Formats: sequence, structure tokens, C-alpha cells
Amino acid sequence: MNIQAPRGTYDVLPDQSAKWQEVEQKINELCRLYQYKEIRTPIFEHTELFQRGVGDTTDIVQKEMYTFQDRGERSLTLRPEGTASVVRSYVENKLFGLPDQPVKLSYFGPMFRYERPQAGRMRQFVQFGIEAIGSKDPAIDAEVISLAMEVYRSVGLKRLRLVLNSLGDTESRIAHKQALIEHFEPRIEEFCSDCQTRLTKNPLRILDCKVDRDHPLMETAPSLSDYLNEESRQYFEEVKGYLEELGIDYVVDPNLVRGLDYYNHTAFEIMSDAEGFGAITTLAGGGRYNGLVEDLGGPESPGIGFAMSIERLLLALEMEKVEIGQSQNLEVYVVAMDQSTKKKAFSVVKDLRSNGISADMDFAGRKLKAQMKSADRKKAAYVIVIGESEMESGRVAIKEMATGEQQQVSFEEIAETIQTKKSLEE
Amino acid sequence: MNIQAPRGTYDVLPDQSAKWQEVEQKINELCRLYQYKEIRTPIFEHTELFQRGVGDTTDIVQKEMYTFQDRGERSLTLRPEGTASVVRSYVENKLFGLPDQPVKLSYFGPMFRYERPQAGRMRQFVQFGIEAIGSKDPAIDAEVISLAMEVYRSVGLKRLRLVLNSLGDTESRIAHKQALIEHFEPRIEEFCSDCQTRLTKNPLRILDCKVDRDHPLMETAPSLSDYLNEESRQYFEEVKGYLEELGIDYVVDPNLVRGLDYYNHTAFEIMSDAEGFGAITTLAGGGRYNGLVEDLGGPESPGIGFAMSIERLLLALEMEKVEIGQSQNLEVYVVAMDQSTKKKAFSVVKDLRSNGISADMDFAGRKLKAQMKSADRKKAAYVIVIGESEMESGRVAIKEMATGEQQQVSFEEIAETIQTKKSLEE
Repeated sequence: MNIQAPRGTYDVLPDQSAKWQEVEQKINELCRLYQYKEIRTPIFEHTELFQRGVGDTTDIVQKEMYTFQDRGERSLTLRPEGTASVVRSYVENKLFGLPDQPVKLSYFGPMFRYERPQAGRMRQFVQFGIEAIGSKDPAIDAEVISLAMEVYRSVGLKRLRLVLNSLGDTESRIAHKQALIEHFEPRIEEFCSDCQTRLTKNPLRILDCKVDRDHPLMETAPSLSDYLNEESRQYFEEVKGYLEELGIDYVVDPNLVRGLDYYNHTAFEIMSDAEGFGAITTLAGGGRYNGLVEDLGGPESPGIGFAMSIERLLLALEMEKVEIGQSQNLEVYVVAMDQSTKKKAFSVVKDLRSNGISADMDFAGRKLKAQMKSADRKKAAYVIVIGESEMESGRVAIKEMATGEQQQVSFEEIAETIQTKKSLEE
Repeated sequence: MNIQAPRGTYDVLPDQSAKWQEVEQKINELCRLYQYKEIRTPIFEHTELFQRGVGDTTDIVQKEMYTFQDRGERSLTLRPEGTASVVRSYVENKLFGLPDQPVKLSYFGPMFRYERPQAGRMRQFVQFGIEAIGSKDPAIDAEVISLAMEVYRSVGLKRLRLVLNSLGDTESRIAHKQALIEHFEPRIEEFCSDCQTRLTKNPLRILDCKVDRDHPLMETAPSLSDYLNEESRQYFEEVKGYLEELGIDYVVDPNLVRGLDYYNHTAFEIMSDAEGFGAITTLAGGGRYNGLVEDLGGPESPGIGFAMSIERLLLALEMEKVEIGQSQNLEVYVVAMDQSTKKKAFSVVKDLRSNGISADMDFAGRKLKAQMKSADRKKAAYVIVIGESEMESGRVAIKEMATGEQQQVSFEEIAETIQTKKSLEE
């Protein structure tokens, strides 16, 4: 009998979880500053939502979804991304009727894609994302991008690159699509079978094919930027203007198309430039999805958002050698000399905790010396030993482990004394 | 086209999420004080884990699991509870080898059971739980119960009842099981078919049958407390002694058996006594599970833990009319009089946020009056209007909404002035 975590999943162990908690705290604070409020949607949704909301021709829907039937024979799918669920909730709960649009939402949680597992690409992974739904103001595009950049800045990452593109509006995309078909059609038999299907269904998708990326026609393919109509061009200029106002550097990459069907106008990715990062350098991606709310049954409500992988953020921290989540060490370890003083030790521990001081003791029946070693390993700031003589005198010594200094106090004074010492240190 | 959240699931909407965040913050702080470190296990596990770890004869495993095959034909199950996963991780990652036992762990996240949905019983629900693995010290039983009680106390709940029982060790349970068989066998045909199966497989389970609960044999059934051997009796006395030391009230209920197979010795539930709560009053449950680590392939490592439903905690708050998570209101709303001053407003918003002040503005092209209404709805503490005259003079008025007071400052002084005002309020 030896059961392991399923392939492509992993445990965040107790010595790692402080990092995750610190990332979440920083994200929560940024969402407060930017006024994005959290939404929590279910882990699974009706499969139809992702077929419609992510797009039938995407790799995600075609190859990577965890789809199953429940006991009521509904087809359900573990969510492969967050935007479709958030938009479903925006429509179902009529958030489009709120007086203040856009509605600014954030989410944080696990997503699921059946892929070949590798570092930074697990089958269960965690994404933080935001969505601003109900505005087509180019300033909100800049705000969304700015929040993503601020998350990385707040944890200490520096080697970042923001890549930007415009996918234009529907008119521009149709013109470009026609040009792509004309470009690839004469030599389409030299491409992989996926690309041959893509030619009519979604020729834009050919541009991010991993199989055919070195084919000479790729480099000479018509660029969407040459097919943007005046309105799309103007919109993109304004987004760039606001980014400049915020002092955010970017590079425009006309080949950036993103892997989801629903994007238009602004599309962006944030990459890591850190050395040794390997193949996967995209930390976050997002873009504008005017039309998606209508596709999912709501009224016209233009939206924009991004999603970032927390696993990749933590990988980037490792690459840049930034340490976060220094685990909060123990404040007081209380040693019971023997069984007769244990209840008293237990009550001292309780009293400390009630006063907001972290405290712990032995629950393994160990002797004094072993308990002192444990206090060391837990990096306790203070140790209090309770034996028979302390019980008799009613006084204990608070030992400061860093200096070896001791202070004698009564049992009643312990919590207050430690609080005073703590406040002096701050 | 009208896609809704799957039956038995729900969305936590933005106006509710502050409550959830406050509960999580309080839990995180208590885990720090008690030194329980977070562990994050996957949403799904190999089905076998729950068959072995939760128990083949339980309702959960027999009727309520979300089980499916992945594309690699593994049988996977969405976790119906947290303990089996945490113990699996403890074994797989050899946490039993850490020098400090017990290992004290906490978890927080969604669980899944296919049941008939009702208030407080959803198909996807959220549990917070802790596990202390590697100690059979009765003091740790009391610590675990104490942390559960403190969670409720910290959010302001008062109408709580702690119910306690001892399920004894294996020897005691075998003796009791034999007595139960002898008690029910002569009239077992009067019981439901489930109970007839339970008679030989797990007669203890008859005692919490909902169908037969009024059968006269129920009341006269032999109580486990009469079959506890000396060691089990002694252990239970010590747990009660530590609870008294902590000043925690409890009632002993010999019929408390819990719905999972793995419990022995200490079992407990925390119920709400609040009026109007209806049928479901159990907020949390837990107990000791010596033997479970061995069942899942690890060395002898006695454990104890609990799980609590966050949905029911929030229901209990409603019943007791306690309000938490007063959503953090906006600090500053910046109004742009027209398109020509919008970029400046955008840059003021950015500057405020960079200084730790929450700030927002209009992204919907609304006129002055509509923007002022929006600032009211968002309960902004301060409003700043930027028009042409402000651009020319380089000075703006910071208006305090509560008093109507205005203060004139230069653009560069805005953030600092608000910070000073904020610190004076605290």
C-alpha cells in the first residue's frame, strides 16, 4: 500500500506554505488599493461553459480538460482557467445591473489542464487573476496591466518584460484572417495536420504552432498590425499612452496572439528575463475580450483581464534569488520538567496564545534536554522552564535565547513581560 | 444560451468575499499562535486513498464521491474531506521523519460530496481543518479542541456547545461491537436494509441511522462507555482534565460516533445553539485516528484533528446576528472633469496607490455629477476633482466627505496629506 499524489499534482508542504501566504497577502493588499473585489466561483462548471467561453478550437478545450459526468449525468469540467467562470457569474448574478461599471473582480485558486507535467506546468496549478467587466476605456487596460506588474514588483522581482500587441476589433481581424489564408493556402500541405485544420477554422492560431515555427512562411506572414482599422489603431495608441503615463516600459510584438479564442484589441504577456529560467518564461498573460459577455448570454459588456501562475512567480523568485515568506518563528517555548508540572505549562501556553503570543510545548513525553533542542530547532525567541521549584516559588525565568539573558517574573506577569519585550524590539 | 453554476455549487460574490477573507485572516492568526503550519494538497486524489482512508462502509465512499477517470485512465476522486489527503502527504513526504513530532498541520479549501443540496450542505463546500500527527498525548487532544473553539470565539460566536465522547481503543471497540450485535440481532428484521448490512460490517453505524432512530432498541443499546477498558477510560479522563484546565465547557454524549470509520478514543462535535438554525447545527467535528497513518503505509503515528465548515460558520454568524467583513471602503475617489484632465487624474490615482492608499476613478466616461454619485456609493472618504483650473493652478481641493471640509494642496502633496489625515484618524 503506497498511495501518492496524482501525476501532475503536488503538495505545498508546511515549510513552503509561508511563501504562498505572503504572495496572497501582497495580492490582497494590491487588490484593496486598486479596488478589485474577490469573487469565488466553483472548481467545476458545466462543460458547455468552457466550450463556448474558451473556444472550441483551442488546445485547452480539445485536449486538456478534465471532463466527467456526475451522478446526475451532467457533463462537468474542472475549470481550466478563470475568465469563463467569472463572466458566467457576472451574467448569472446580473452584475451588469450594478450602477458602477466596470465591475472589478479578482480570483485566486486552482485550475486544471491535462498536459505533460514539467516545472512550471503542472496539471493542477494556481492562478491569480483579475477581470474588469463593463468598460472599454483604454485607461482600464493600462490599470489591469499595471496591477499585474505591481504584483511582481511587490514580491521583489526585477527581471520582467512586458510584451504588448493589439488584436484589433472584429473588422480588423476579418481582414487579417483573409490575408493569412491567402498567405498560407498555396503551401499549406507543408504544415502539420493541426495547422491544416486551423487554416479555415482559425488561421491566426497557425502563428503560435510549435511544430511549424521555423517554416519560412511564418516570418513573412502578414502582420495584424498592418490590417488594424483606424478605430483599433487609435485604441491601441491610447492604451500605450496611459502605460507611458504610469512609467511602465513595454515592447510591442506583432506576433503575440495568446492561446485563447476570446481576445481582441489589447493582448499582453509578462515574461521573466531571469537567467536559467529555461523554456517557460511567460509569467502572466491577458487581454481584452469584448463580446465574451454577450457570447455567454449577457448584455454588451466589454471586458479585460489577466491571469498569472503562482507556481511560475515562485520559480521566478528562485531564479532571481529573492527570498520571501521567512517562516514566522515561534515566540515562546514552554518546557515542563516532568509530568507533575505539565498542566501548569499547558496553562501558561494557553495564556500566552490568548495574549497574541505564539507559544508551543512538548507533546511527545520528552525529557528536558530534548525539549530544549526542540526549542532551538523551532527558533523560539524565549524559553520558560517550569519545574517543582518554580511551582513552589510561583516565579519563573524568561530566557531570551539570542542573548542568554534571564528575567524572573511571577506566573501572572509572563504574558505582559513578553509583550513588552516584543514591543521594544519593533 | 444561459449557463448557470452547477447544482449544489455557488459563487461567493464580491459583496460577500470580505467576510470570507476576514474568517481566513483570523484562522491564519490562530494557526500562527498555536503553531499549526499550512499544507496544501491537490483537489483530487487517487480514489483508492479515500476507499482506504475514509472507509469503504461510509456513506461518503459509497454514495457521495465525485469519481472519474482522467485521460490516462486513472481513477481519481475530488476530495470529500481533508484528513486522508493530509495523512497521505505526511506518509509520502516522510514527515514522520522530522525531529519534532507531532507535526501540526492546517488546511483550508473546497471539498466535494454529491448530496441533496440544502442550506449548509452544498456539493462543493469549504473546510478549515487541522491535524496533529505523531503524538498520543491527551494534552494535544485538548489543544486541538481548543483551537476549534477559539476560531468561533474570534469571529464573535457565543452560542456554542462542545459535545465529547470516547470511542475507546481497539480492544474496547471489539467488546462493544460484540455487545451491539447481540443487542440488535434478535430484532434486526425490524430495521432498514442499510442497518441490516451494518449489523455485521459495522454495527456502531446503526446508532446514527436516520431511518431507525426512533426504534425502541436504540435507546437501550449498550453504550460504548460501559465497555471502555482501563487504558481508554484513563485517556478520556486526562483529555477532560486538560479541557477543564483550559476552562472549556463540554457535555459528554455516549451516542456521539461520527460518520467516518477511522476515529478512536476522543471524538467531538461543536454545535450551534443559536435560535432558528434548523436541522443542521453541527459546525465542526473531529477526533483521534490512531492507526490511520499505518493503514496508509506509514509507521505508527497516532493523530488527531478536526474539520469545520466555513459555510456553516457564516450561517451561525447570521443566526447570532454578528456582522464581520465590513468591506473596506474606498479611501479616495478622483474625479476628472473632462477628457483633457483624465490622464492627470489617472496619474494621481496611481500615485495614491503607490503610497498605500486605495484609490479609484471613473472608467465609463461619465459626467461630473454621475462620478460624484459613484464616489458616494463607494463610500469614498475623500474626493478630489481635477478640472482645467486645477491643471492651471497646480493645486487641488481634498474634500473630506464626512464633514464637507476642504483642504487646498499641490499635486505633489496629495498622497502625503491623505496619509497624515489617515494616521490622525487611527
